[in-house]
Amino acid sequence: MIHGGDIYRNEVKLDFSVNVNPLGIPAGVAQAMSQAVGLCSHYPDIRAEVLKCSIEGMTGVGREAIVCGNGASELFLAIAHALKPRKTAIPVPSFFGYEYAATAAGSEIVPTVMSTKDQFCLTEDLFRNLNDDVDLMILANPNNPVGNLIPRASLERLIEVCLKKNIVVVVDECFIEFTGKEEMHSLKHAISEYPNLIVVRAFTKIFAIPGVRLGYLFCQSSTLRNAIERQLPEWNLSVFAQAAGVAACDERDYLAQTVTWLQQERAYLAGQFSRAGIRVFPSEANFVLIQTELPLYEELLKRKILIRDCSNFRGLEKGFFRIAVKRHEENEELLQAIGELMGY
Amino acid sequence: MIHGGDIYRNEVKLDFSVNVNPLGIPAGVAQAMSQAVGLCSHYPDIRAEVLKCSIEGMTGVGREAIVCGNGASELFLAIAHALKPRKTAIPVPSFFGYEYAATAAGSEIVPTVMSTKDQFCLTEDLFRNLNDDVDLMILANPNNPVGNLIPRASLERLIEVCLKKNIVVVVDECFIEFTGKEEMHSLKHAISEYPNLIVVRAFTKIFAIPGVRLGYLFCQSSTLRNAIERQLPEWNLSVFAQAAGVAACDERDYLAQTVTWLQQERAYLAGQFSRAGIRVFPSEANFVLIQTELPLYEELLKRKILIRDCSNFRGLEKGFFRIAVKRHEENEELLQAIGELMGY
Repeated sequence: MIHGGDIYRNEVKLDFSVNVNPLGIPAGVAQAMSQAVGLCSHYPDIRAEVLKCSIEGMTGVGREAIVCGNGASELFLAIAHALKPRKTAIPVPSFFGYEYAATAAGSEIVPTVMSTKDQFCLTEDLFRNLNDDVDLMILANPNNPVGNLIPRASLERLIEVCLKKNIVVVVDECFIEFTGKEEMHSLKHAISEYPNLIVVRAFTKIFAIPGVRLGYLFCQSSTLRNAIERQLPEWNLSVFAQAAGVAACDERDYLAQTVTWLQQERAYLAGQFSRAGIRVFPSEANFVLIQTELPLYEELLKRKILIRDCSNFRGLEKGFFRIAVKRHEENEELLQAIGELMGY
Repeated sequence: MIHGGDIYRNEVKLDFSVNVNPLGIPAGVAQAMSQAVGLCSHYPDIRAEVLKCSIEGMTGVGREAIVCGNGASELFLAIAHALKPRKTAIPVPSFFGYEYAATAAGSEIVPTVMSTKDQFCLTEDLFRNLNDDVDLMILANPNNPVGNLIPRASLERLIEVCLKKNIVVVVDECFIEFTGKEEMHSLKHAISEYPNLIVVRAFTKIFAIPGVRLGYLFCQSSTLRNAIERQLPEWNLSVFAQAAGVAACDERDYLAQTVTWLQQERAYLAGQFSRAGIRVFPSEANFVLIQTELPLYEELLKRKILIRDCSNFRGLEKGFFRIAVKRHEENEELLQAIGELMGY
């Protein structure tokens, strides 16, 4: 299994394998989607003008620098097709979708392992792997499946080095709103300094609408943007996606509540794992990576609880699991199940 | 303007520029979409198993031969990326999307003009243009913007010739359900005879849900199918698209009503155009191509009626317009407006 969250072929009561906001779909977003049903007899706006205007309102990035996609996954694929990179550098462990998109466009992958001993941080190894035939780098901030943020100075230095080497850098910020440190860590305003920078975002996780499919990117270079848009199908954003996105951009209170809930629950969950003798890696996202020799995936699935077995991530091995942070009662239920199978 | 239906940047009361079923969204489909709102906090089924099973039920084509897309437009692009055709043969006039998709993947276009004197039918010219470096052919049946069906024997002969020349043939049947002759004219069951055949369909027009984005294709060759799927982003079908598609597959009465309405209204509209001295080309689809020297597009837009000016179609010129067949009252309103501007 390459992705988590396959609730369609597993009998699951609690799904800790996908990193979706457990506060649920904001009421305003659900209402906008209900109202959109009747609008589906029209084609969606092929230019997504209202949506781009709303994203500008939410993020402060000018609408002319925005490209929207049918999920971030569509954007990764379009970027790969637009650039046709000979080689794509990916610090790992990371989201499998980057590799999937790059290889679809015929690229070779140059992985750089961020190791346990470095707490999964970027090291100088990454720079050493930036050979002349690397045309693209894709990384996530915060990273998935670890959840750690890359220090801003390191990230900017990396992009600068890549700029000199003609390497386009894609920074996936799909989880950055969860950290509560978006203003400090996001590179959204840095696009004006770095023409080789593409920042990818999604509505999916933070607004709890993975079923809708809606992502977007920021890129200052019109050449790059036009090349990416040329690789997207016409009308790629449904009427539902556009309506949901417009409504979501107004949900500032929901975002604040999300950050408050997460800080509390992540600390609780991490603390309980540590107490149970399970290694937890530091995370600022809405999930934590843990390491244990317990057969956690299989044992929890017997109890209809799904977690993400990370043994098939490049750079990880047997014994690593990613656990989404959910609501307190759900986290309690998970901890209780783990306690039981540990024999407490 | 490359596509019709831009109601977002035109003030429009009646839109005859898009070929969507005017009977509106079937009640069962609208209900399924409303119910899907609450399911959007989950990822859609990445394999679309229930949807494929429903399409098999509706069409009789085995689910293993089906690939679904975020609109047919996504499938054309994925086909182009999968095949990387050196040259793509397209009989024109035709839907601009084929050319758009093929050139996105770097293909050159080899157009063959179907002329007015041949009533826009395929001629031997097409065969003469099938040189060795043509790897792909894309055509529509019935054709758009004309609406005529290709005789089945001609079409099968063409696919056979292409098979010998290693050319993949994409037959776009997006409008075939409107003709009432699907069983006779569709090549859906011919995929088992021709490993180079891809039949593309859409829910968009026939079920009046262009806002949803849902297309599918039939292809017997697993090599070809896998290559196409590899060019689609993960989770390309939203929860809404899957729910709408499943519900639409049950709408047999709606399809029958559509055919009945269309036969009557198309004959009425065509008859009235002829009577007014406007040339109408024979159509079996839910639109007609007309030819007139009147500045029909501009004059009707002043009356907030949008039609499709076809002067920018390859193979057509100034004076060709495509008119969707709509409900009787709407068709009356169009005819009255035309009568007025002709000075009746």
